[in-house]
Amino acid sequence: MTCHTNADLQKIVNEAALHTVYGEVAGYIPALAEVNRHDLSAAVYNIKEKSCIYAGDYQNKFTLQSISKVLVLALAIQDMGSEYVFGKVGMEPTGDPFNSISKLETSIPSKPLNPMINAGALAVTNMIKGESSDEKWHRIIEFVGRLVNDKNVSCNEIVAKSEFETSWLNRALCYFMKQHGVINGDVEELIDIYTRQCAIEMNCFDLARAGAVLALDGKDPETYEEVIPSDIARVCKTLMVTCGMYNASGEFAIKVGIPAKSGVSGGILAVVPNKCGIGIFGPSLDKRGNSIAGVKVLEMLSNRNDYSIF
Amino acid sequence: MTCHTNADLQKIVNEAALHTVYGEVAGYIPALAEVNRHDLSAAVYNIKEKSCIYAGDYQNKFTLQSISKVLVLALAIQDMGSEYVFGKVGMEPTGDPFNSISKLETSIPSKPLNPMINAGALAVTNMIKGESSDEKWHRIIEFVGRLVNDKNVSCNEIVAKSEFETSWLNRALCYFMKQHGVINGDVEELIDIYTRQCAIEMNCFDLARAGAVLALDGKDPETYEEVIPSDIARVCKTLMVTCGMYNASGEFAIKVGIPAKSGVSGGILAVVPNKCGIGIFGPSLDKRGNSIAGVKVLEMLSNRNDYSIF
Amino acid sequence: MTCHTNADLQKIVNEAALHTVYGEVAGYIPALAEVNRHDLSAAVYNIKEKSCIYAGDYQNKFTLQSISKVLVLALAIQDMGSEYVFGKVGMEPTGDPFNSISKLETSIPSKPLNPMINAGALAVTNMIKGESSDEKWHRIIEFVGRLVNDKNVSCNEIVAKSEFETSWLNRALCYFMKQHGVINGDVEELIDIYTRQCAIEMNCFDLARAGAVLALDGKDPETYEEVIPSDIARVCKTLMVTCGMYNASGEFAIKVGIPAKSGVSGGILAVVPNKCGIGIFGPSLDKRGNSIAGVKVLEMLSNRNDYSIF
Amino acid sequence: MTCHTNADLQKIVNEAALHTVYGEVAGYIPALAEVNRHDLSAAVYNIKEKSCIYAGDYQNKFTLQSISKVLVLALAIQDMGSEYVFGKVGMEPTGDPFNSISKLETSIPSKPLNPMINAGALAVTNMIKGESSDEKWHRIIEFVGRLVNDKNVSCNEIVAKSEFETSWLNRALCYFMKQHGVINGDVEELIDIYTRQCAIEMNCFDLARAGAVLALDGKDPETYEEVIPSDIARVCKTLMVTCGMYNASGEFAIKVGIPAKSGVSGGILAVVPNKCGIGIFGPSLDKRGNSIAGVKVLEMLSNRNDYSIF
Repeated sequence: MTCHTNADLQKIVNEAALHTVYGEVAGYIPALAEVNRHDLSAAVYNIKEKSCIYAGDYQNKFTLQSISKVLVLALAIQDMGSEYVFGKVGMEPTGDPFNSISKLETSIPSKPLNPMINAGALAVTNMIKGESSDEKWHRIIEFVGRLVNDKNVSCNEIVAKSEFETSWLNRALCYFMKQHGVINGDVEELIDIYTRQCAIEMNCFDLARAGAVLALDGKDPETYEEVIPSDIARVCKTLMVTCGMYNASGEFAIKVGIPAKSGVSGGILAVVPNKCGIGIFGPSLDKRGNSIAGVKVLEMLSNRNDYSIF
Repeated sequence: MTCHTNADLQKIVNEAALHTVYGEVAGYIPALAEVNRHDLSAAVYNIKEKSCIYAGDYQNKFTLQSISKVLVLALAIQDMGSEYVFGKVGMEPTGDPFNSISKLETSIPSKPLNPMINAGALAVTNMIKGESSDEKWHRIIEFVGRLVNDKNVSCNEIVAKSEFETSWLNRALCYFMKQHGVINGDVEELIDIYTRQCAIEMNCFDLARAGAVLALDGKDPETYEEVIPSDIARVCKTLMVTCGMYNASGEFAIKVGIPAKSGVSGGILAVVPNKCGIGIFGPSLDKRGNSIAGVKVLEMLSNRNDYSIF
Repeated sequence: MTCHTNADLQKIVNEAALHTVYGEVAGYIPALAEVNRHDLSAAVYNIKEKSCIYAGDYQNKFTLQSISKVLVLALAIQDMGSEYVFGKVGMEPTGDPFNSISKLETSIPSKPLNPMINAGALAVTNMIKGESSDEKWHRIIEFVGRLVNDKNVSCNEIVAKSEFETSWLNRALCYFMKQHGVINGDVEELIDIYTRQCAIEMNCFDLARAGAVLALDGKDPETYEEVIPSDIARVCKTLMVTCGMYNASGEFAIKVGIPAKSGVSGGILAVVPNKCGIGIFGPSLDKRGNSIAGVKVLEMLSNRNDYSIF
Repeated sequence: MTCHTNADLQKIVNEAALHTVYGEVAGYIPALAEVNRHDLSAAVYNIKEKSCIYAGDYQNKFTLQSISKVLVLALAIQDMGSEYVFGKVGMEPTGDPFNSISKLETSIPSKPLNPMINAGALAVTNMIKGESSDEKWHRIIEFVGRLVNDKNVSCNEIVAKSEFETSWLNRALCYFMKQHGVINGDVEELIDIYTRQCAIEMNCFDLARAGAVLALDGKDPETYEEVIPSDIARVCKTLMVTCGMYNASGEFAIKVGIPAKSGVSGGILAVVPNKCGIGIFGPSLDKRGNSIAGVKVLEMLSNRNDYSIF
């Protein structure tokens, strides 16, 4: 039984939603903790038909959080080139938690292992071009706007402010990297941009559309214009497979087998090359920080439609 | 310019062979150190045409070393089931070296991160069914024989003996895992089987044929009989992508983008799903322990024939 | 109120014995687990008066376990010289557990941090001179006999055998060190000697007498003959302060302030320079592996008699 | 040959000064790098005679750097009590470098191992009482003034400013500890006070006098008034033995055997209980960050005058 209609997808969502009770909503900032743990919405943008199927309360908005890491990476490589970016940040998956600082200390020279852990993502945001902090931020939000075809995509200022005020660990990572020459400039400004990029808000439909761009190797699924050069889109998808789902990336690759990036808000951006982009929102998280029901939706979708790239 | 003929492949091999001077032959056992650093041979088994192209001195034999990890994993999952195997050994890539013991200590409960690092591979070999050490070993060699369609595939006893006598680190890993209940039974027997599996000998043609089985999701490329159940073949390919090339797996995924597993003998087994199996032998190694020229061959092949799965 | 008589010491022991309920007996081998958790005995050998006070069931025998580390170290330095010993094993305290293997891996070159952790102690035992395993062992037991003035001091064969059969972690440490050239020779033979030295059996009176030798900078408290050269005795006492009480050495130095070495059997060997040797047996252990009531006895003794060296 | 006169000490200093060529001056801030590598001065304050011998250019001033850690600890325990201080910061020596952040991450709950490493010292300074940052700082400088009997002891503002502007690693440690509730309040203010305490300036004579206070268990060597309660003085001396000389504390305890605390400026504060306080300045550092010639001076002094406490 493949999934092709809203009704098909709704059935999957209904079944997956039974798992929300086994997870927890991220509680470290009030704005994230206020959501309904049982929410689950999903959208699939099919690039062939240029149309989207969806299920659940698909208009629910959520912040990107770590999902922003892969989008900003795409912009940073465009800005600085692959060699520069990966001269500062590695390409290797890690068995350590996303916010670990130990590995920065034990690896010589100090270099975040990849752009999907916090240290690497902060270093990547630090590379975004712009004369001022403001310009850098506007280039990020504008780029995300192009991916979702919504010039009005916005940042949830309450979430951004709340995270800015409590990002002690990210500041620790930044100062450690500043010591070792991985990042430069003012740490507070970097934390400001980074917390804003994490607080960019959209619904699962928007996210599916961003995924469709990656599914098309960087081309806009409606106009076929290049939004991201194809080699960069491919780099992003590869890193999504090897490190996109935190410390469960390996297991996700085995069980689902498609490029995906999750965030602690409960969002997941997933990509089936040449087929579709997928956006999920389910704020109940498993122990690794991935949407517990969202992973189930992707597992069922992948099995039914034979989406695995392996 | 795609690569379809022996001549095409020979050109690629010639170009890649220029890189052998930048690597080193593994010198930790005499038998491995005696090879010619500049050797480079490659074979591609196309599953559609059921035929093989090759280049270099393709009859050169080499021992599988770490390549055996992925093959024995396929047998272990058949023997014990996926749940049992991955209850003892994780599925996650790691930023640590393949022979690291620290992670075993810091992870609670102690569990090798994946079956492609030494600790995980030793635990996997420990799961192979058999009444005796001898029976276990014969089941392994017979299984490998089926993959390469060569019932006479053999073990290089000199290499096996030499490694057995110097495997102090692997013994350390085994005793550590025995302490934590990850493995059971006699360590010396396990080291004996493990060093034999690492010393299984073949040429790049045989290796390409084993790759073809994985490319066909576990089916024999000539008879289409199932040699490995398709879901297990998929698990193997996924782990080859996330952890098959030691600490360069992430970079290899980005630059080449196909499932591959390397060994310190200089062999690489690579798989292009539904297209071909590839076998390489180039004993000059880069700093991560992968065949320096072999990686170049795969990079060129992938770029020219658009093999990346991402 | 100072402590000078059996009655004084008995009062202290009675008070300290109230703490046995908060600890646990080491349960990893049956022979150790069979003791009475509430046992507590102590002996103080005063070198001025050449006499001993004692309290509790002072004839209770126990195995030395880690206490043997400091005694065998004294012999090894005599055998090989300070430079050789500390060329293989460091002098620095560590924040890691006594049986940790990670630090061996992360320190370059691989070198156990000190002779009081298992790795270091195994390397030290590996240095003991002797043509055969048997001769090495006899030199150890004879040396310990001289310290306690008991040529009949013996090894508890049941405990030794039991530990030999389950020392997986120590074997892991040995093989790791063999890989890195820290130890040489046969690992099974080393484990055999090491488990025997750990199983040397005595009572708290004997232990106090061994302490008296160290208190006298190596001289026999009765004959004043040199048993250990004074500079080596000093090295032993120093290492007892910085690393003698497992991961509680720093806290013990602050609260008690005298050289001491504990074992998981519940024994503690303590030394008050130029004053006395102390032997304790109390098998109920705190979380760090030190005799919970034994530490209390030493704390009270030190406070009352102003024993701290600081 | 014991050392009792200026001439005796000068001979020792002359001999030790030959080792300055084997070390390096700390170069991480310009103000520290400008000193003469071959400088070496020493002063010994004998508490019995209330007099001081000295050698070298004893009026040379230097900043305390890490030596301040032990002095501020004495104040913090007076302010908050031993239980509070050691509830936040451990008492255990560590095999890790003084500026390591890994251990903070791997220890649960996160707690600096001791007050002599940077993380612990920052947490201790964070405990100093005061309504404002200014008041805290004045209480520190005033306390140090009492120890050296110099109300005009001052902070080298150039060094303080220079360190404040480059303390990225210390900021990383602070933010990490703020995340885990080890410290509270504003990180920039804490770094400001901490860099000032490190920049307190004095000569070796002043330092010897501060040592004399500790040698007398906290009493002023001239007036015998209590400057530090005796139990707190003892805690300080104990921590100087177990962790005062960075990663060479264990070796220093064996070779010299007296409480000492060094700083990267090349200063060493040493204490011989009930005998004398010692101040050294020799900016040429060994690989562990201790004054290379200063350690030699202490080794010779200890051997000749039998100063070891072991």
